Amino acid sequence: MNQFSKEYLVVAQNASGRNMNVPLYRFKGNQPGPKVYMQSSIHGAEVQGNVVIYHLIQLLKNIDICGEITLVPNCNPVGTNIKAGEYTLGRFDPINGTNWNRGYYFDHNLVTEFVDTVTDDESLASIKSRFRQAIKHKIDEKLTDTWGLGLAQQLNLKLQQLAFDADIVIDLHNGPVSTRHIYVPEYAKASASLFNIPHVILIPNKFAGALDEATFCHWWSLQDLLTEKRTCEVNFAVEAFTLEMGSQEVISFDEGLYDAQSIMAYLNAKGSLQKADYKPKDMTRVAVTLNNYKILYTHQGGIVDYLAKPGELIKQGELLAKVLNVDELDNSRATETIFAPCDLIPILHFPSASVLSGTQLYKCFTHYFQLT
Amino acid sequence: MNQFSKEYLVVAQNASGRNMNVPLYRFKGNQPGPKVYMQSSIHGAEVQGNVVIYHLIQLLKNIDICGEITLVPNCNPVGTNIKAGEYTLGRFDPINGTNWNRGYYFDHNLVTEFVDTVTDDESLASIKSRFRQAIKHKIDEKLTDTWGLGLAQQLNLKLQQLAFDADIVIDLHNGPVSTRHIYVPEYAKASASLFNIPHVILIPNKFAGALDEATFCHWWSLQDLLTEKRTCEVNFAVEAFTLEMGSQEVISFDEGLYDAQSIMAYLNAKGSLQKADYKPKDMTRVAVTLNNYKILYTHQGGIVDYLAKPGELIKQGELLAKVLNVDELDNSRATETIFAPCDLIPILHFPSASVLSGTQLYKCFTHYFQLT
Amino acid sequence: MNQFSKEYLVVAQNASGRNMNVPLYRFKGNQPGPKVYMQSSIHGAEVQGNVVIYHLIQLLKNIDICGEITLVPNCNPVGTNIKAGEYTLGRFDPINGTNWNRGYYFDHNLVTEFVDTVTDDESLASIKSRFRQAIKHKIDEKLTDTWGLGLAQQLNLKLQQLAFDADIVIDLHNGPVSTRHIYVPEYAKASASLFNIPHVILIPNKFAGALDEATFCHWWSLQDLLTEKRTCEVNFAVEAFTLEMGSQEVISFDEGLYDAQSIMAYLNAKGSLQKADYKPKDMTRVAVTLNNYKILYTHQGGIVDYLAKPGELIKQGELLAKVLNVDELDNSRATETIFAPCDLIPILHFPSASVLSGTQLYKCFTHYFQLT
Amino acid sequence: MNQFSKEYLVVAQNASGRNMNVPLYRFKGNQPGPKVYMQSSIHGAEVQGNVVIYHLIQLLKNIDICGEITLVPNCNPVGTNIKAGEYTLGRFDPINGTNWNRGYYFDHNLVTEFVDTVTDDESLASIKSRFRQAIKHKIDEKLTDTWGLGLAQQLNLKLQQLAFDADIVIDLHNGPVSTRHIYVPEYAKASASLFNIPHVILIPNKFAGALDEATFCHWWSLQDLLTEKRTCEVNFAVEAFTLEMGSQEVISFDEGLYDAQSIMAYLNAKGSLQKADYKPKDMTRVAVTLNNYKILYTHQGGIVDYLAKPGELIKQGELLAKVLNVDELDNSRATETIFAPCDLIPILHFPSASVLSGTQLYKCFTHYFQLT
Repeated sequence: MNQFSKEYLVVAQNASGRNMNVPLYRFKGNQPGPKVYMQSSIHGAEVQGNVVIYHLIQLLKNIDICGEITLVPNCNPVGTNIKAGEYTLGRFDPINGTNWNRGYYFDHNLVTEFVDTVTDDESLASIKSRFRQAIKHKIDEKLTDTWGLGLAQQLNLKLQQLAFDADIVIDLHNGPVSTRHIYVPEYAKASASLFNIPHVILIPNKFAGALDEATFCHWWSLQDLLTEKRTCEVNFAVEAFTLEMGSQEVISFDEGLYDAQSIMAYLNAKGSLQKADYKPKDMTRVAVTLNNYKILYTHQGGIVDYLAKPGELIKQGELLAKVLNVDELDNSRATETIFAPCDLIPILHFPSASVLSGTQLYKCFTHYFQLT
Repeated sequence: MNQFSKEYLVVAQNASGRNMNVPLYRFKGNQPGPKVYMQSSIHGAEVQGNVVIYHLIQLLKNIDICGEITLVPNCNPVGTNIKAGEYTLGRFDPINGTNWNRGYYFDHNLVTEFVDTVTDDESLASIKSRFRQAIKHKIDEKLTDTWGLGLAQQLNLKLQQLAFDADIVIDLHNGPVSTRHIYVPEYAKASASLFNIPHVILIPNKFAGALDEATFCHWWSLQDLLTEKRTCEVNFAVEAFTLEMGSQEVISFDEGLYDAQSIMAYLNAKGSLQKADYKPKDMTRVAVTLNNYKILYTHQGGIVDYLAKPGELIKQGELLAKVLNVDELDNSRATETIFAPCDLIPILHFPSASVLSGTQLYKCFTHYFQLT
Repeated sequence: MNQFSKEYLVVAQNASGRNMNVPLYRFKGNQPGPKVYMQSSIHGAEVQGNVVIYHLIQLLKNIDICGEITLVPNCNPVGTNIKAGEYTLGRFDPINGTNWNRGYYFDHNLVTEFVDTVTDDESLASIKSRFRQAIKHKIDEKLTDTWGLGLAQQLNLKLQQLAFDADIVIDLHNGPVSTRHIYVPEYAKASASLFNIPHVILIPNKFAGALDEATFCHWWSLQDLLTEKRTCEVNFAVEAFTLEMGSQEVISFDEGLYDAQSIMAYLNAKGSLQKADYKPKDMTRVAVTLNNYKILYTHQGGIVDYLAKPGELIKQGELLAKVLNVDELDNSRATETIFAPCDLIPILHFPSASVLSGTQLYKCFTHYFQLT
Repeated sequence: MNQFSKEYLVVAQNASGRNMNVPLYRFKGNQPGPKVYMQSSIHGAEVQGNVVIYHLIQLLKNIDICGEITLVPNCNPVGTNIKAGEYTLGRFDPINGTNWNRGYYFDHNLVTEFVDTVTDDESLASIKSRFRQAIKHKIDEKLTDTWGLGLAQQLNLKLQQLAFDADIVIDLHNGPVSTRHIYVPEYAKASASLFNIPHVILIPNKFAGALDEATFCHWWSLQDLLTEKRTCEVNFAVEAFTLEMGSQEVISFDEGLYDAQSIMAYLNAKGSLQKADYKPKDMTRVAVTLNNYKILYTHQGGIVDYLAKPGELIKQGELLAKVLNVDELDNSRATETIFAPCDLIPILHFPSASVLSGTQLYKCFTHYFQLT
């Protein structure tokens, strides 16, 4: 059977001077296999991932695994607890506006320097192990700097220390009002079809601060440089994904079971599970490249009826939303209509009817295509 | 035809020193009839009422009215514009926590004093007119006090100056995640069945700061005292209601039309409309007295799946909600269940899955009964 | 020597489902004497009281006391940890606007009922003891209600359970930008001169939700009713105060020592200390009755230079503040001046230059007089 | 005499659908001279710059200028009006955490492409004029994009359209609790001594999103490329500065006059004023390069007494701050001390006593030197 352990990691101290910690649930199999790291709720209002991890733990109690699976629900105890009105202000530090998901570490220079230390006959296993040590050593240096480090970055780096040991990294998020969708690095595009998630965003080797990028940009860059150096394809088989499990501010135990089974299908395909039946569903998966995942901003302030629902196919010129203008209720400017600038699928929309000008109204798939 | 006019009322200045104003839309009929005052969005996130007023204006353009109808959408330009994260922090002043709907004026002493000025042969019309002047004079004194007045109270009193002229006052609100429901003063219980609203709360002659109370408590108290003084039933036919048009943070033009037609049915029954067809629907209306409209608070913090939906009939002991506990995912304390303490109808629930202990989880009808 | 103990009281659970607790520091003397209860930071941004308690603990380590002294710093772990921008949003629950200092319990009816149970020959000690039990029993009932209780009220009542055992209750607060001042119940006016605090507000027997009132209103009402019943003066010698130790958002260890010595002078006068030298300072103390402690609200929005400093004597017509109007910088309306409507002492002012209309600009002593 | 004009620029719409605008005050001289652009309060809580502009307008009414001076106080009407508690949450958009001062435009590629269009004999005046057009055209394209633009970026770009016409750009800010200091591009180091500001930060040609950078990075890059191309020093004499006029959340008319005179001294030296006496003061000015302007973060949460005051010279190992730990008041861990890691001058510190771990406690000059 699997070994199971639970521990707590201190990631911050609050203004009362008290430790804030994060629970780590860990399963170790009696067979070798990939190391998996999964976390949820780095954004405090995105809570469905905690339910998914709950279901995964119930499923993993009854199945033998290969390798190791570490599950870190509620990984941002600061963000989870920032209420502003009835909702959770969990996307950024209320003190300085820092997004809780932008302080992970990536440095391309360090990868370049590391490649110089690789000899021609060094095994991939040895490279992988040394690279992990190098990155984790660098993160450690940052965490112990004399002048200290900002709260969000401290939190991110402490989690990255754990995550960088893994071969598979899954970061569970939610959109505002949203369909289920997944961010997949282009080199791991084949894995997109192993999850039961209908909408897929393919992302390039470009670091913007998130955990998935901080994981795959390191390995992708290393692979590219070594492939060039050795003039043969090098592959470390490390994959990292951000999964958006529907809308923020709500949980559903029923939907969480579906989400957990989807992840089990992926893990099974990757050799994490022993004698398991989990398989990806036969379903339509629609994808875009990141540059075609477009934000539609409002030109006006007002009150919005979101007529196009997340996941719907919308043709160019069709109605997306209708905006009420309270100062013009007696004339033809009472409502304004917003149309689709091209064929698109709205993936998520702003969660409040009240918007200022310059609000992210919809994020949309454009020039999308079916995965096969 | 009706006369139509539009003007703006300055209710505050912002920190840039600029006026913040409220639009007033006014229809005057060519026949005598009741004066109607209606406002929406005194709580900034409760925006559906603006859509209802939009539809009412379209309907009133095409129908002759009796008396006068004043419509004040977006009546709190301060509250509408307080964003905290993506949502609108519109229930209270972010500076001091003052609920935007608790600063209206009522003073029972003033009613008592006024009754002493009524002679035995004064007509109801004269009493009504003098009482209006007396209350409005008092509000005016407060608004012009040397030491000034708090922002919420200023806003409330400026609106009350308008509303106190009316025979019918309708304040449009929304609940968090909510069914449609209406607050009706006990003495106007018969009017509850004139709206197409399934859930009715009957409230006593007790002032707690809201506009409907600030209206009907004055007239109710006056009626009671005069009835006693004259030993015959006195009735000023002034009615005031708070309508909760579903959930906050969303609007729907389609549902707004239903809501507007419901209000037109009431207005038609009260003689506001000429030759109109609007009639209340034949539907089940369930009511409670205010003391049986109960709040269920959480005993624990955690993440909640709201299983009982607003409007459902729930039996004592049935499941209301399930709470996830992220620190106990590996054992039997992973989830906690919350059961109905008695037979009830959940009318609204908290709009976020993340709750602290002491959160208003549900508001429920208990000991409810059908209106006939 | 004194016995010392430390324990923790759980007062809430956060959205991660974790307990939030409050530290209790308790000194018990080897001689009988009054029970003292002191708390600080019920409003999260008002932190100087924690420093005062720090100094008191250092002082009490080296002096023998009579009776018992319970010190509860940081008594609101929820409020302490609500940041909104760089400041602490600690005056009210960010979810619903509830002031953290308005949910204590007082019920005059219960006092009346209790008086009926007092026999003519019951001793004051017995009455005191039974009254404490009755009130604490009632609070207990509220805390264990099936439908639960709001967070602020739960917190308040758990603290009141501790405080109601005491003969002396001291609640440590801060103003926004403020001088040191103290709220004293009128019947304990003589005690005002035992603290080294220059500004004194004398408050009547009227409950508005705060801890000092929830303490002295109970005892004051009981005293009054028993005095009437027994036709001789009854005095339970219970006193309760709110001390405002300067401005919020800052601490000073130096000033905290002064504050601690001031409290020690009071405690010494009340018989809490053995062989101690602490004496009240010979200083001017200025007092007002609560109805003469006036709030000056802004009529306009804008940016304010607070020219009158807290504690200064200002004559009628003298300049208090100057408001900048950014839209009129080229003409005579560029600045607006606010003058004192009567002779006054500003005690505190709003802590930000940016104000809306209806902002509490200053709170002022008017018709003040010197205590002798 | 100067020509004076005032107009308003619409920069956003609020959730009520109403325009939010910014006042522009403009003086045009009857002599040629530099174009000056100055704005204040892009961060809503940083309000002293508005007072500085008030004083500048009074001074400019009475003096003839050369060229043109445009003054834009209160340039962020959104940020100015976001209250969270009593303070102004003006550093970032409360919806998404975007810093209001990070969305200006700079693109090095565009500079490179532009240089290719410059012929060997094109005059500097012509280059300057064409470059302005090119940048402003690009900004215009962004502002009119079909998919729209975020609110902060819209605001920033609309202001940059105005600012990019100028030869001198001054952006008025405040620190949290702060001395007066100024950011100066290294190439304009000589100008640092023309202001009466004691602390100077010298910044490199690196864009991080602010207005001063968005100005000088364009011109600096162009100068460098043209100097290389023409093999002779090219200088467009465009300078841009961020001035930090003390602490946020307060204004002082007295200090504002000092600040205005300081800016007049600089403008006089740059040829903006006719026959004016304004001269820089003879005073000590201390400078650092940006990489030596260090942030000291907290390792712990707690309540802080800021003992080192902004502007003081602190030696390595001297006391900076003392942190209270409410859970350890009875033992030696009651307070923790924070020492200077090297010789430094604290320039600003966090404005609240209550801090979490990872808070920016102080920003400090290290390895500083005197400007001569």
